[in-house]
Amino acid sequence: MTAIRVVAFGGGHGLSASLRALRRTTRDLDLEITAIVTVGDDGGSSGRLRVERDALLPPGDLRQALAALAADNPQHRLTASLMQHRFAAMHIPAQVAAPGRGPRLERRADRSKDSLAGHAVGNLLLLGLIEMLGDPVAALDHAAEMVGAQGRVLPMARHAVGIEADVVHTDGARETVRGQHSVAVAEGRVEALRLDPADPPACPETIAAVRDADWLIFGPGSWFTSVLPHLLVPELAAAIVASRARRLVTLNLSPDKETSGLSTADHLAALHWYLPSLRVDTVLADATWVGEPEQVRSAARDLGAELVLAPVAVADGSPRHDPESLGAALVPVLGATR
Amino acid sequence: MTAIRVVAFGGGHGLSASLRALRRTTRDLDLEITAIVTVGDDGGSSGRLRVERDALLPPGDLRQALAALAADNPQHRLTASLMQHRFAAMHIPAQVAAPGRGPRLERRADRSKDSLAGHAVGNLLLLGLIEMLGDPVAALDHAAEMVGAQGRVLPMARHAVGIEADVVHTDGARETVRGQHSVAVAEGRVEALRLDPADPPACPETIAAVRDADWLIFGPGSWFTSVLPHLLVPELAAAIVASRARRLVTLNLSPDKETSGLSTADHLAALHWYLPSLRVDTVLADATWVGEPEQVRSAARDLGAELVLAPVAVADGSPRHDPESLGAALVPVLGATR
Repeated sequence: MTAIRVVAFGGGHGLSASLRALRRTTRDLDLEITAIVTVGDDGGSSGRLRVERDALLPPGDLRQALAALAADNPQHRLTASLMQHRFAAMHIPAQVAAPGRGPRLERRADRSKDSLAGHAVGNLLLLGLIEMLGDPVAALDHAAEMVGAQGRVLPMARHAVGIEADVVHTDGARETVRGQHSVAVAEGRVEALRLDPADPPACPETIAAVRDADWLIFGPGSWFTSVLPHLLVPELAAAIVASRARRLVTLNLSPDKETSGLSTADHLAALHWYLPSLRVDTVLADATWVGEPEQVRSAARDLGAELVLAPVAVADGSPRHDPESLGAALVPVLGATR
Repeated sequence: MTAIRVVAFGGGHGLSASLRALRRTTRDLDLEITAIVTVGDDGGSSGRLRVERDALLPPGDLRQALAALAADNPQHRLTASLMQHRFAAMHIPAQVAAPGRGPRLERRADRSKDSLAGHAVGNLLLLGLIEMLGDPVAALDHAAEMVGAQGRVLPMARHAVGIEADVVHTDGARETVRGQHSVAVAEGRVEALRLDPADPPACPETIAAVRDADWLIFGPGSWFTSVLPHLLVPELAAAIVASRARRLVTLNLSPDKETSGLSTADHLAALHWYLPSLRVDTVLADATWVGEPEQVRSAARDLGAELVLAPVAVADGSPRHDPESLGAALVPVLGATR
């Protein structure tokens, strides 16, 4: 019996939750996991690396996905922790040497030159690997090996893209917002989402993973900046539509800033809006957070999907997926294909 | 039969040559290799990290030793290459965006902010590990694991030290030169070498390795800035003298800038000068480069050592050790203890 090939689309935290849940699912099912990651991040460490180094890919979300897939042994966990570690900001007063750390006269810590603060070590490691090898996929495959990843991490496109959106404010004013970070925190309703460039080249490995998949999983995650961008890469969208894989949408538990005002049903409608030919087999939602499910069931039906309700949130009442529960909920869904 | 425990002292390139030779020796002998590395580097990437981040240890020489010990398989070799990889300087004209790499308006590579250029990825990785774990030895042990190191890498002291020297110029003028890099390139004769602080704390693991060693190996390497500094750490010097290990000195092939004017015999005399109670068992020199061996033999005898001559240089006539030949020459020396 061959493994069930699962491709999970997303960006940062949502994709991590999805991947951790899939790791849990491997206790019951033989899965071959591939993460396909948005490459629009322009905030924080990744954004600085795009500006300062013209980074081919923003490494942050790729690194998060690698950490989520890291093997469960002390050595690989430690390497994953190192990749996630962010250099602290230096708090040494300029012109005051640390005691006993070098010649008193020559060397003084000068925090005005502290350029590493805030960078995740793994971002620099991925940047170095991509620079050294030239090929982002070879770089990601090696980084995956370094953390003993239980799956593969691939980028949505071969190079960084810009994400921009037309946003309509409550007073009716319309504004074009540029940059993933700005879109993610924009006040108002996102009306049109675009990539810049509009037709970035996809990776052959990414296209092949979609083609050969048994399941494609969309969400959870920031809907406009982590989930929908995949559907805007023409080559990737075509592969998604053409794939013989079954398709699952894991809904978010609550709207975030960029989707404030959007109902859960609207999230599903957005998938149809940006990729009209997308058909979905299953929509998975949390039984509690979904509220009155009829609207969602109807929106799912419009995509051709059955709504599955399960307890997938953490127990403390916050709107976060619990990898353990989400993983358990995925077992009957993903296993039903065999 | 237990392994022969070999401790190799040094700094940058010389220590790498010694470690690569010892790797070669393991084809014939069962060795347990420990590298003990100077922590005085204040040049290049390491120097910048001391100034900008108040780095606990200058990582460059430690990284070189790890790379020299990396396991001989494609995955570990690639991780070692990544550690050795230096970020290239960006050559993107400021204010000109790379084509197709992000929103045309928002993101422009700005090389004036390129702060990573010149840093070796492994230096940043070691810096991050030390910052995350707090303990430099735990950090080095994990980095060793990441490259499948065939041995252990330990620092000469628990934190960075300064190296300074009094230098006498040909006109008799005397000058105090501060910083390892400045001493290494100083014109004139080095008359007095000091550490700052004079009594840095050694690592317990370093002291234990010296205590339990079967062989202590000094050199090759920059004599004043990579070999002798170990003898200036009081706690480490005491352990070296007290160790029941046999002691080997591998001589340099030709003087470098800091030792210009020093004969090969003078190199041996310097060991006695800085640590008078040091006894040596074997001095290994290249049969061709040593020139007329009588002076060297006599200087070796003053330390209690036998001079062994062997062809250990590369074949092209440049003054570099060939790991293969040096390793072969070490077999009868290190094996004779059993």
